[in-house]
Amino acid sequence: MVSESLFLRACRREAVERAPVWMMRQAGRYLPEYREMRQRADFLTMCRTPELAAEVTLQPIRRFGMDAAVIFSDILIPLEPLGFAVVFGEKGPTIAQPVRKPADVPTSVPENFDERVSYVYQTIEMVGDELPAEVPVIGFVGAPFTLASYLIEGGGSKSFAETKRFFYHQPEAAHRLLGLLADTVARHLRNQVRAGARAVQVFDSWAGVLSEAEYRVWALPYAQRVLAELAQERVPRILFTLNAAHLYGALAEADAEVLGIDWRTPMGQAFDLLGDRFALQGNLDPTVLLGQPEQVVTETHKVLAGVGSRVGHIMNLGHGVLPSTPIANVEAFVQAVRDFTGED
Amino acid sequence: MVSESLFLRACRREAVERAPVWMMRQAGRYLPEYREMRQRADFLTMCRTPELAAEVTLQPIRRFGMDAAVIFSDILIPLEPLGFAVVFGEKGPTIAQPVRKPADVPTSVPENFDERVSYVYQTIEMVGDELPAEVPVIGFVGAPFTLASYLIEGGGSKSFAETKRFFYHQPEAAHRLLGLLADTVARHLRNQVRAGARAVQVFDSWAGVLSEAEYRVWALPYAQRVLAELAQERVPRILFTLNAAHLYGALAEADAEVLGIDWRTPMGQAFDLLGDRFALQGNLDPTVLLGQPEQVVTETHKVLAGVGSRVGHIMNLGHGVLPSTPIANVEAFVQAVRDFTGED
Repeated sequence: MVSESLFLRACRREAVERAPVWMMRQAGRYLPEYREMRQRADFLTMCRTPELAAEVTLQPIRRFGMDAAVIFSDILIPLEPLGFAVVFGEKGPTIAQPVRKPADVPTSVPENFDERVSYVYQTIEMVGDELPAEVPVIGFVGAPFTLASYLIEGGGSKSFAETKRFFYHQPEAAHRLLGLLADTVARHLRNQVRAGARAVQVFDSWAGVLSEAEYRVWALPYAQRVLAELAQERVPRILFTLNAAHLYGALAEADAEVLGIDWRTPMGQAFDLLGDRFALQGNLDPTVLLGQPEQVVTETHKVLAGVGSRVGHIMNLGHGVLPSTPIANVEAFVQAVRDFTGED
Repeated sequence: MVSESLFLRACRREAVERAPVWMMRQAGRYLPEYREMRQRADFLTMCRTPELAAEVTLQPIRRFGMDAAVIFSDILIPLEPLGFAVVFGEKGPTIAQPVRKPADVPTSVPENFDERVSYVYQTIEMVGDELPAEVPVIGFVGAPFTLASYLIEGGGSKSFAETKRFFYHQPEAAHRLLGLLADTVARHLRNQVRAGARAVQVFDSWAGVLSEAEYRVWALPYAQRVLAELAQERVPRILFTLNAAHLYGALAEADAEVLGIDWRTPMGQAFDLLGDRFALQGNLDPTVLLGQPEQVVTETHKVLAGVGSRVGHIMNLGHGVLPSTPIANVEAFVQAVRDFTGED
């Protein structure tokens, strides 16, 4: 019998003694011990080498004692087995051969998919062996819309013009691509759970660029398909969407236990809108961790005070921790969560 | 007596026979006649040469018969007289010497400010001479927060990390910078009105990156100062904010006649929230103009149907027209507004 973690209990909206805390991208560039390892191996090599990826995953747990360990990986990892090489450069990922016409859409998930990304599953196994039972491993991946936008744009974007052009001109191929990505992503998450992930997070990071009407056509149905396929695995399913204040009506229908909320919506307001059905994760503005430690404490306590006595809150940032974040501010953040009594 | 335009009447929330229509960035790169001129002069030279800027301003009016003529200029134009050279490159504007410490904040608006950007005012005068009375000229500029973010980041940004770091560590200098920008921007807009602009638009394009609490500290008060200083000019004041669904509570307090709404919020919903106090401008998703002409017509009519019989709607895109937009789709957009009867 695995002893139950704060994090998993909060995901199930059980009463907990304090909010569990972790940070999106906590295994990564803001850590000096990570940067030191990166001098000897590039990003993708580190992802693909379970010993290195497991070590990086454990670094923030050792240093800060987070309540959950998100694996060191990337939301785009499942794209390579589908035939798209991703280059992770200084200015973000790029895809040399983007999807621009229907013939560019792969026809099926390759049979050897599991093998091609088995390093992720091995990483999870290794991390699971090292972690105390009360610190669960979180697996993750990008949602179909977000992955499709990278595939079609050939990288990140501001306007998502190519993605929407493809959707409008090639709707059939677009739906085929999104369906294939849903199958791929569901498979990747299921494999992560079977390797030991005790929660999964789906990042639909860029879906906030869509109006609710478009979101209901191009993003939500495919995120739902992924989430539904994971239901039988019986681990908490977290859906994170950046910049989604206009999408809460649709997100209220998500087949998930937890919704990730970015910093734009006060957490109390998010609970009023969504807290009767979901645990909510978030939402300190990651740029607050670039401020003074006292500001970190004040703003962290504001988030927690906004939640008040409501159940089902997982403390996190509103987006990934920024590479330029000082360690002292991460310490202040974690400590502020531990110290919070609701009386300041 | 200047005959009254559809656009100005809609700004004042008077009943009009149909919604007036124009497009943010309608004078620009999607037009072949603009691209042809750009082969002989770079972007800044075109901005600074009234004959060229006036010609480009008039191009979309001649081709499509828009109901208002926004001048060809840039939201960053007032930065150069403040001592910041802006380079307009393929990947957006960059500022070689960004603001990174309090000493980098200029102490005052230079006395020769008007002279240094007089080309903008001359452009407006030239355009005013050419336009029929029912097509007013719109002047514009960036809002203090948005300009400050360019100055501090040294260009565009995704995370606005440097801007927020500066705000958190140097709040006094940050407020000084924002105050100076408010004075600068108000002066630039007032000069545009006196040169003949019959409406002004303030672009707080990036303020949507802030939570409402931060918006009320770093953006709204300075946009308000600009808007308030323009009140005596008695022209409609338009405040545009991208990605602002979480800020409508604060935007409801704006000292403006018109709010620009991006494509994320259905126009009917925006009218329910804000339409009792403001005329509203928007909001076809600019990427729809990359689709098929029939989709353009359908989606344009959807926006208009969402507004219904309410007064004070100015049809526009939800953000600037994209450079890759086909001319035929702009024609379809404008024609769809003209043809709309509310019965399809």
